[in-house]
Amino acid sequence: MPLFPLRRVPLTASLFSSRLTPSIRPSFVSRRFFYGHISDSKMAPQLEPFFKQVDDSSNDFIDRLRKAVAIPSISAQDENRKDVVRMGQFLADELTALGAEVEQRPLGKQPGKEHLELPPVVIARYGNDKNKKTILVYGHYDVQPALKEDGWATEPFELTIDEKDRMYGRGSTDDKGPVLGWLNVIDAHRKAGIEFPVNLLCCFEGMEEYGSEGLDDFIKAESKKYFKDTDAVCISDNYWLGTEKPCLTYGLRGCNYYSISISGPAQDLHSGVFGGSAHEPMTDLVNVLSKLVDAQGNILIPGLMDLVAPLTEEEQTLYPDISYTMDNLHESLGAKTGIHATKERTLMARWRYPSLSIHGVEGAYSAPGAKTVIPAKVIGKFSIRTVPNMESEDVNKLVFDHIKAEFAKLNSKNTMDVWLQHDGKWWVASPKHWNFSAAGKAVQQVFGVKPDLTREGGSIPVTLTFEEATGKNVLLLPMGSSTDAAHSVNEKLDKRNYIEGTKLLGAYLHYVAEESTA
Amino acid sequence: MPLFPLRRVPLTASLFSSRLTPSIRPSFVSRRFFYGHISDSKMAPQLEPFFKQVDDSSNDFIDRLRKAVAIPSISAQDENRKDVVRMGQFLADELTALGAEVEQRPLGKQPGKEHLELPPVVIARYGNDKNKKTILVYGHYDVQPALKEDGWATEPFELTIDEKDRMYGRGSTDDKGPVLGWLNVIDAHRKAGIEFPVNLLCCFEGMEEYGSEGLDDFIKAESKKYFKDTDAVCISDNYWLGTEKPCLTYGLRGCNYYSISISGPAQDLHSGVFGGSAHEPMTDLVNVLSKLVDAQGNILIPGLMDLVAPLTEEEQTLYPDISYTMDNLHESLGAKTGIHATKERTLMARWRYPSLSIHGVEGAYSAPGAKTVIPAKVIGKFSIRTVPNMESEDVNKLVFDHIKAEFAKLNSKNTMDVWLQHDGKWWVASPKHWNFSAAGKAVQQVFGVKPDLTREGGSIPVTLTFEEATGKNVLLLPMGSSTDAAHSVNEKLDKRNYIEGTKLLGAYLHYVAEESTA
Repeated sequence: MPLFPLRRVPLTASLFSSRLTPSIRPSFVSRRFFYGHISDSKMAPQLEPFFKQVDDSSNDFIDRLRKAVAIPSISAQDENRKDVVRMGQFLADELTALGAEVEQRPLGKQPGKEHLELPPVVIARYGNDKNKKTILVYGHYDVQPALKEDGWATEPFELTIDEKDRMYGRGSTDDKGPVLGWLNVIDAHRKAGIEFPVNLLCCFEGMEEYGSEGLDDFIKAESKKYFKDTDAVCISDNYWLGTEKPCLTYGLRGCNYYSISISGPAQDLHSGVFGGSAHEPMTDLVNVLSKLVDAQGNILIPGLMDLVAPLTEEEQTLYPDISYTMDNLHESLGAKTGIHATKERTLMARWRYPSLSIHGVEGAYSAPGAKTVIPAKVIGKFSIRTVPNMESEDVNKLVFDHIKAEFAKLNSKNTMDVWLQHDGKWWVASPKHWNFSAAGKAVQQVFGVKPDLTREGGSIPVTLTFEEATGKNVLLLPMGSSTDAAHSVNEKLDKRNYIEGTKLLGAYLHYVAEESTA
Repeated sequence: MPLFPLRRVPLTASLFSSRLTPSIRPSFVSRRFFYGHISDSKMAPQLEPFFKQVDDSSNDFIDRLRKAVAIPSISAQDENRKDVVRMGQFLADELTALGAEVEQRPLGKQPGKEHLELPPVVIARYGNDKNKKTILVYGHYDVQPALKEDGWATEPFELTIDEKDRMYGRGSTDDKGPVLGWLNVIDAHRKAGIEFPVNLLCCFEGMEEYGSEGLDDFIKAESKKYFKDTDAVCISDNYWLGTEKPCLTYGLRGCNYYSISISGPAQDLHSGVFGGSAHEPMTDLVNVLSKLVDAQGNILIPGLMDLVAPLTEEEQTLYPDISYTMDNLHESLGAKTGIHATKERTLMARWRYPSLSIHGVEGAYSAPGAKTVIPAKVIGKFSIRTVPNMESEDVNKLVFDHIKAEFAKLNSKNTMDVWLQHDGKWWVASPKHWNFSAAGKAVQQVFGVKPDLTREGGSIPVTLTFEEATGKNVLLLPMGSSTDAAHSVNEKLDKRNYIEGTKLLGAYLHYVAEESTA
């Protein structure tokens, strides 16, 4: 279960315990990626030949990514469903060729689109040795839509490498690169003739960009079957906080999404004819929405902040060490419109405090130009990012009570309704678990730095599903960097992040093998 | 120029002066449409045979409307431009066959759609007798879009008459019925061998439903040429206040349409990643919008109400006589969400007080469902319906100052801009003018009741253009009723309104001829 309040993790001690086997200093790594922080950490015995093989195979690995990016596996577009299926088959074929046992599990018809079969979950097992730990890895093989004319500098479904070794293409970083990273790890071990350190279970889905339809039930059902041997879970589907320093991610915010509908007349009205004589739903809605959050981001719902776990002195000491600056924030915003003055307060606002965002209004005039309509019914959408210890039911009650009270103050004859559209719980794992220790050592070995221990402001619902279904520790181990532009135009994955990231995933498995689980 | 404050019009005296010629009581009218208010008014000498001819020709007139409705002259849709042109040709052919001199005047390319020619203005002259008054009538031959699947009970471009003699079809009431009314008047006079009482100038445009592109310049240019003999203007393009009692309309509200844009980050943000750490444009926008108008319709912009001409005791006495009830309001709203308790206050709110409506937000999430975006730039749209004596420049200054002050209070680092998208001035004519007196007598003669003297909450910009270009009195003389659903599905014109409305237009011309212009 999520651990909170956080305690400071004695990183050095846990990462480099005396249990580590002697190893060779990774000279080829430190030459290429020396950050001035190389500790006297020990290398697991098989890492050097593995790393060398990854370097030697790097062109093959890039070719593998090129083939994957060329398949436009867009899950949100009906006409691309065949490509999503083709991408699943590509993964299955690659895994089979690498010696894994592979299955493609159907998920049935797509809810609401019964003419479409959901793409299968590709599951695979590589190794079945009772003396080894079993690591379950998750990724997804579908991608966001992309069109050249959206503003891409290159063809989105042709992997294009520029002079700075940035590899552009839809899905390069989200999430084909990380998924293929696991395949590359197996590949390099086989080519170099190195024993694989763990049993690997793969769970690769094809609907992540469209709400992971059907996946939760599948994971729950298989948790005591296909996934029953799992000792820990690793997900590589998020990003470094910046561009230089890897991170391990141990927390996510949840999200409660609400709708407020206000309706009055039976149909849209002409504002000339009715303006001034009838209560207007849009007037009421902006009034109510203006009572939810102030311009400084303070949530105005009485009692809501009382649900938030207090900031302890211990937790406070975590933030100054994080490799992040206000310039990083301004760069990612493309503007200097940050609310807070310091990086610490900014990271807290993102990771450990709730936020409330107003997303838009359904039913009102939203096109360019000018239309003098009085909308008959408008639906305001907003969401609250939740953190420990906000329970969804408590949040809902406070939200509903506040909105009803504010609407009542208006003395409007219109009709108001407010409801929860969906919620997803926050997640916080223990970064003291051996799963995190192993990953920390791997980062140190490959990149020569201690990773940042981060949380994310967003949610990756499957994380909590895996934790709850398997009862095991879940680690988020990102491959891409903050500038990769997932979901946007010109999505890319740096060659360095892909190749060193492949080493990272492999090294992680080796350190996992060495961890005591006692 | 607009007359304000209003003075009570001595209706009976002005409508039934001693100058009226003796006439026969219209027994066939009073039998069919007896309202219990028939006065002892006098009928102009030629009206009885004219009325009889209209009744005898009513099937022909309905056929004429059927042919016109069958032409889908939708000005907003490029693919229907040929139909708009065809409809103009239909009118020109009909007018020519009736003996009018007709011209189709080109307006050039459509601004912003240079591949399209604007449909021509069809202008016509019927009669050129220096001893007669010259009346300029305006109407439009284009229509709103319509598709059966929008919810029409019948084919929108097939005139369909139900058992209650309601004639359904796009354009039936807006504005093909009224336009053909003028043609029917000429037709009936020719068939009955009655001398036409005035010189008639027609100005029928084909772009009214798309902003009357090019028309203003045309009217100004022709005001001293084709339209130079005009003694008064009559426009039949609005509606009765209810369903039983005709009205003469002497005022319209103006409209100032504003946009407020608020922008912050360089691109849309993920609310998980950035929620709580950056100023959100949508939060600022709902705050500013909530400071414009309260739920009771009170405009919150300081100083704005001071611009409004005060309500005089004299004006106040006008409202109780108007044939309108709170049930009429509730019926047209389809709900009991009216703000005011009395019909008088409701009509004042619609006609003589300004109102502020918030129309929507551009740039925010507006689709059904749930999307967790923080929009980077949002544009709020609102408009103020203006009344005497609000000058646009004064209104703009108060609006801009208020919004800037409210935005400044937020202490947001986002960027705000506010601007006027367009404005159109209010219009108020003198209902004591002979043009209105003649129309009042015609209503009394045809419908047996005194007309309501009304204003409209909306704007018909061409009204002010004609007034300013010709310098003559403009009368709005509607044919359709409040239930005609112009612009909506199942648009209709009651057969009674069409046939008796044709009589009304003809009778109006006869009474015009008798009016002293001294």
